[in-house]
Amino acid sequence: MPQADNIRVAVVGYGVIGKRVAAGVALQDDMTLVGVADVATDWRLHAAIRKGVALYGATAEAAEAMDRAGLPVAGGLDALVGAADVVVDCTPKHVGAANAELYRRTGKPFIVQGGEKHAVTGHSFVAESSYAGAVGRPATRVVSCNTTSIVRTLTALKRAGLLRRARGTLLRRATDPWESDHSGIMNTLVPEPEIPSHQGPDAQSVDPALDVVTMAVKVPETIAHLHYWSVQMTRAASKDEVIAAFLASSRIAPIQTSDGLVALNTVKEMMADLGRPHDNLYEVALWTDMLKVQGDELFYAYMVDNQAIVIPETLDAVRALSGRVDAAASIAKTDASLGVGELIRPRPSDRTGAAAQVRGSAAAKS
Amino acid sequence: MPQADNIRVAVVGYGVIGKRVAAGVALQDDMTLVGVADVATDWRLHAAIRKGVALYGATAEAAEAMDRAGLPVAGGLDALVGAADVVVDCTPKHVGAANAELYRRTGKPFIVQGGEKHAVTGHSFVAESSYAGAVGRPATRVVSCNTTSIVRTLTALKRAGLLRRARGTLLRRATDPWESDHSGIMNTLVPEPEIPSHQGPDAQSVDPALDVVTMAVKVPETIAHLHYWSVQMTRAASKDEVIAAFLASSRIAPIQTSDGLVALNTVKEMMADLGRPHDNLYEVALWTDMLKVQGDELFYAYMVDNQAIVIPETLDAVRALSGRVDAAASIAKTDASLGVGELIRPRPSDRTGAAAQVRGSAAAKS
Amino acid sequence: MPQADNIRVAVVGYGVIGKRVAAGVALQDDMTLVGVADVATDWRLHAAIRKGVALYGATAEAAEAMDRAGLPVAGGLDALVGAADVVVDCTPKHVGAANAELYRRTGKPFIVQGGEKHAVTGHSFVAESSYAGAVGRPATRVVSCNTTSIVRTLTALKRAGLLRRARGTLLRRATDPWESDHSGIMNTLVPEPEIPSHQGPDAQSVDPALDVVTMAVKVPETIAHLHYWSVQMTRAASKDEVIAAFLASSRIAPIQTSDGLVALNTVKEMMADLGRPHDNLYEVALWTDMLKVQGDELFYAYMVDNQAIVIPETLDAVRALSGRVDAAASIAKTDASLGVGELIRPRPSDRTGAAAQVRGSAAAKS
Amino acid sequence: MPQADNIRVAVVGYGVIGKRVAAGVALQDDMTLVGVADVATDWRLHAAIRKGVALYGATAEAAEAMDRAGLPVAGGLDALVGAADVVVDCTPKHVGAANAELYRRTGKPFIVQGGEKHAVTGHSFVAESSYAGAVGRPATRVVSCNTTSIVRTLTALKRAGLLRRARGTLLRRATDPWESDHSGIMNTLVPEPEIPSHQGPDAQSVDPALDVVTMAVKVPETIAHLHYWSVQMTRAASKDEVIAAFLASSRIAPIQTSDGLVALNTVKEMMADLGRPHDNLYEVALWTDMLKVQGDELFYAYMVDNQAIVIPETLDAVRALSGRVDAAASIAKTDASLGVGELIRPRPSDRTGAAAQVRGSAAAKS
Repeated sequence: MPQADNIRVAVVGYGVIGKRVAAGVALQDDMTLVGVADVATDWRLHAAIRKGVALYGATAEAAEAMDRAGLPVAGGLDALVGAADVVVDCTPKHVGAANAELYRRTGKPFIVQGGEKHAVTGHSFVAESSYAGAVGRPATRVVSCNTTSIVRTLTALKRAGLLRRARGTLLRRATDPWESDHSGIMNTLVPEPEIPSHQGPDAQSVDPALDVVTMAVKVPETIAHLHYWSVQMTRAASKDEVIAAFLASSRIAPIQTSDGLVALNTVKEMMADLGRPHDNLYEVALWTDMLKVQGDELFYAYMVDNQAIVIPETLDAVRALSGRVDAAASIAKTDASLGVGELIRPRPSDRTGAAAQVRGSAAAKS
Repeated sequence: MPQADNIRVAVVGYGVIGKRVAAGVALQDDMTLVGVADVATDWRLHAAIRKGVALYGATAEAAEAMDRAGLPVAGGLDALVGAADVVVDCTPKHVGAANAELYRRTGKPFIVQGGEKHAVTGHSFVAESSYAGAVGRPATRVVSCNTTSIVRTLTALKRAGLLRRARGTLLRRATDPWESDHSGIMNTLVPEPEIPSHQGPDAQSVDPALDVVTMAVKVPETIAHLHYWSVQMTRAASKDEVIAAFLASSRIAPIQTSDGLVALNTVKEMMADLGRPHDNLYEVALWTDMLKVQGDELFYAYMVDNQAIVIPETLDAVRALSGRVDAAASIAKTDASLGVGELIRPRPSDRTGAAAQVRGSAAAKS
Repeated sequence: MPQADNIRVAVVGYGVIGKRVAAGVALQDDMTLVGVADVATDWRLHAAIRKGVALYGATAEAAEAMDRAGLPVAGGLDALVGAADVVVDCTPKHVGAANAELYRRTGKPFIVQGGEKHAVTGHSFVAESSYAGAVGRPATRVVSCNTTSIVRTLTALKRAGLLRRARGTLLRRATDPWESDHSGIMNTLVPEPEIPSHQGPDAQSVDPALDVVTMAVKVPETIAHLHYWSVQMTRAASKDEVIAAFLASSRIAPIQTSDGLVALNTVKEMMADLGRPHDNLYEVALWTDMLKVQGDELFYAYMVDNQAIVIPETLDAVRALSGRVDAAASIAKTDASLGVGELIRPRPSDRTGAAAQVRGSAAAKS
Repeated sequence: MPQADNIRVAVVGYGVIGKRVAAGVALQDDMTLVGVADVATDWRLHAAIRKGVALYGATAEAAEAMDRAGLPVAGGLDALVGAADVVVDCTPKHVGAANAELYRRTGKPFIVQGGEKHAVTGHSFVAESSYAGAVGRPATRVVSCNTTSIVRTLTALKRAGLLRRARGTLLRRATDPWESDHSGIMNTLVPEPEIPSHQGPDAQSVDPALDVVTMAVKVPETIAHLHYWSVQMTRAASKDEVIAAFLASSRIAPIQTSDGLVALNTVKEMMADLGRPHDNLYEVALWTDMLKVQGDELFYAYMVDNQAIVIPETLDAVRALSGRVDAAASIAKTDASLGVGELIRPRPSDRTGAAAQVRGSAAAKS
């Protein structure tokens, strides 16, 4: 039941991110989805209509094409933006930067996605790191899936006082399932031509203090990214201490190969079994039994669902721009609505102790 | 709200079929899920517990292992079967045949899946073809995914008086996503070594009158099967007439490349967008704009979700064995509960006319 | 040792076909490779230089860029064409049609590949079917890989008096290995949107008497195409008779699953083991133990190496345009030079009897 | 022309390694291939016969089965080993360890592959690191493909005085092409469950002084492995200095994305274009333009052809066991016979200067 004082949210761009943001907004008791704008007229928009989403034409031409395709059009982009309190732009790379000018003219706070540069909004957002900095701003940028995972995990280590420097190898899924009929790679591996890859500097756009270098390679699968990290800690630490540091974040979920969660496909199937829409894995799924500490060095791997991980961050960014609640409250609200946190096993009990304290203080500081 | 006189259903084997059957049973207002039995103790069973499913050990050893793994065990296989009115066996090939002896001793009606031979039950089931024959029987076999699709489509042509003989090439997905980390094929095609493949004769176990020959090949993808058919009709017919014949079945869903549904991946993504659990495609998804009639010859292609297509048939088979309702009533009930039928577009209006008559009479005859 | 009266051959376009044609020309004792022209400057041309191939710039810009890249340039396209007796165009689709005008102005006989339309040359070439028709012509078109295989196999059946009509399903490899880092499909199947697909009519451009209908689908592998056929014969025939009909063509190679040749990858690996350059499979590799005759119906499957199958045809087309020898002589010469024919097992002895007679008469007629 | 005093070599196990070793032996002017032993009877052995290789039954049963399959059998394993000076075992993991007992009884020097443990021979071999230690030994072990590449590259850095410690992420091809019809993974990534993976300690079995930690993951492709390294150097160094250090090894080949060599598939295709049998890449192919130095840290990636990289090492190991020549002479001989070293571009000229000196002294020391 939408409340009269809910934050009215417009979603521009109904692709893999946009449709998940729209569905996520609909689950928040303090937000109301005004509608979505797009330029396509294919099955994706027909499915939106079937789900009761109000559809707007992102351009006049798009509105006409939608009409011809039998899609009911609620209005144009101006109408959508005009009816909203916050605009979430989920259009493809570079389109968001162009749209930003429009949003800025209307005076409506807006969010762009990680495909755009930091300079488009001047602020880059990961809830557990930079929520507070977004409060009262006209706009923020939710960083990309890879960068979100990096900031979540390194922030957890940093808050526990364990992080000196981190070196990561990122295996990037080659394309998204819905467009794998016309794009992708086959039976090969494609290194990013530049070392370091852009994700390290991008993480520094959220937290300039992070000492992080990344290398990236495109791999022939469509499910998720996989990161391998080699971290120089500030000191020797125990494995339990490191795991507790990670689990202080509700958005880092522990998984174990001993539960049969041995690869990307099994983790993804588990999300379907748990009934999550689109089998979304909102968390960084980090293998805790695989994680290794050797003196002051730390090695670990985790999985990043590139279509889902930024959804909770985007919902939090909406609240941050609206300025109504603080980071801890927003994160708790988002987590509860999406079921973020525990997967098949209860989280370690110490989370309610020391780790929870870390988390609490982190949220307070952010 | 389970009713006192609901059919109590036990599911033995909680794999890709078993978990979908269990979820499907839970959606029927005339059935109650007693619980599921399995031998595994990994994430799949933990996820079942998280969803509130009652878990039974399929063997004494399994029950003990579950207990050690922290899984609450409701009892053994005898207890599960004893508490049920109908048993649905979804275990791997050959296990079901062995279990059948047990079920038979208890006198409980039971269903096995298409991995078992026809002789295990003496009856093979596809709702629109052989429902009536299952009524009052002690057991039936829901045929495999490929065979189910063949019987659905050829039965539709047969009822319209159009079918003489059908020759099909079946592209079979190599493995299921959840086990693609340890099985599968890579960058190759693997023909079934025997022509004809077994699916043609298997279709004849449901309807001996079908003149059908199939060839099959394993392909390197995990989403769904794809069938290509070349049919000799009894006479020349129009494309509209053929499409109307197919759409007389609620379980054949028309799709169109002109809607952007150009490949397996886009159709699967649409099911996720429509909110179906596990992105299930229960229908045969048949491309109507691709379908071609040349005189008395017919050519077409369709997609078969091997994990989902037998779920509605299994639910109908439960009702057939229980003998409470006829085919038309059961099919309607199952379809409504799962949302089977229309995808993104309303079905052609003639379905409420001539085609619906075909369907009505078909159900009456079955 | 090139002879003074050898046919001087120019190859325009040094892609997957062009580089194989150039290597094939170099193996013919009655041909001399003048050189190759291209527009690229990457590793492919560097590798050509390392193999001693003379390199020409297909355009003035290309020649300059080659020079800048450190590639020795022998001249421009005019020089290359001017020094040749026959030009083989192996450029990408549509480029060959544009180049044809240039070749025509020079009066040099030329060959285009199957990506171009029949009208570009007015004649379509498969050695065993239409060699004679190309003699004395100014140009011909070597049809595509799929069409070549169709004409080879159906011509064999036709010559044995067995062919009434053929219906085929074609599984097309999605992209070539060398460009699989930036094109392709992933974990899906992509039907050709039109039924029938273009290969049937294309086969009729070589032999208008063929009654053939094809359906095609793109599959996620890069090795080869795989065809499944359902043929209505003129009469009932034995399996041996059918196999003998196929093996009357030296370019149809029998393979058997009982030798472990169970899939595309094993056949391809065998070609590498046999020492063929680029693991080329020039033959249609047809599974003889899989082949099935049911009365007057015939079912079979074969593999088509899309990069290699047209190489022998192209070499024969050079000889046909030059008018020096007849089909049987050219085919024998090409086969001997490339090792076309037997793979790991001697061909059935009856080939030297009845089947060889069929082949002899076929060549005489062609 | 085999010389009377050539080293007579027996190859036991004719799989992906064995067939390449056999072909490599045949190219050495100081070695003679006695024959190969195996237990299979399929196309692989038929192809060996077609190439003129003498075939032995690895067991009595195998010899009988070969005879039944029409394969000419030259004798049993005893006969093969008896006729050889050195035995190269290329059987699957664990079989070599069992065979070692047999070889030891005959007193013939032997080589096992990296699938066996170090303890089987007590010596682990990489030509540029441990050749000298193998001279006069009864047996050695050529380490696995991944380990070979690690020792080659880290030895190069070590000899230049640059190596402090190395941390690597290894992307392992999931299966070999010839068996991809029945094994492999699909559309997923499968982490090795243990961190560190075994390759680091395995490298230390060749050179205990290496400070190296590895993490490994199986990826869905069949072409080659890909390694990413993050190295702490002993001091800041220039990029040129690091590249010169690597290129002091003839078995590290520089490749550049600017030549279009942007992924595994293009490098592999280049090997085919260069005419190498089985498209073998014997070298570590290291991207020099991608390589990055940041102060005293070094980052780079390279490709490892798991089927080919150990072939030159195995040939050198034969010479080491025979004790006839030193490391530098053997490496030079092997390289020249296989064409190891330069790919499409001449190696940097400084290799004949300082780098060659490093290489010379390294060989002298080894």
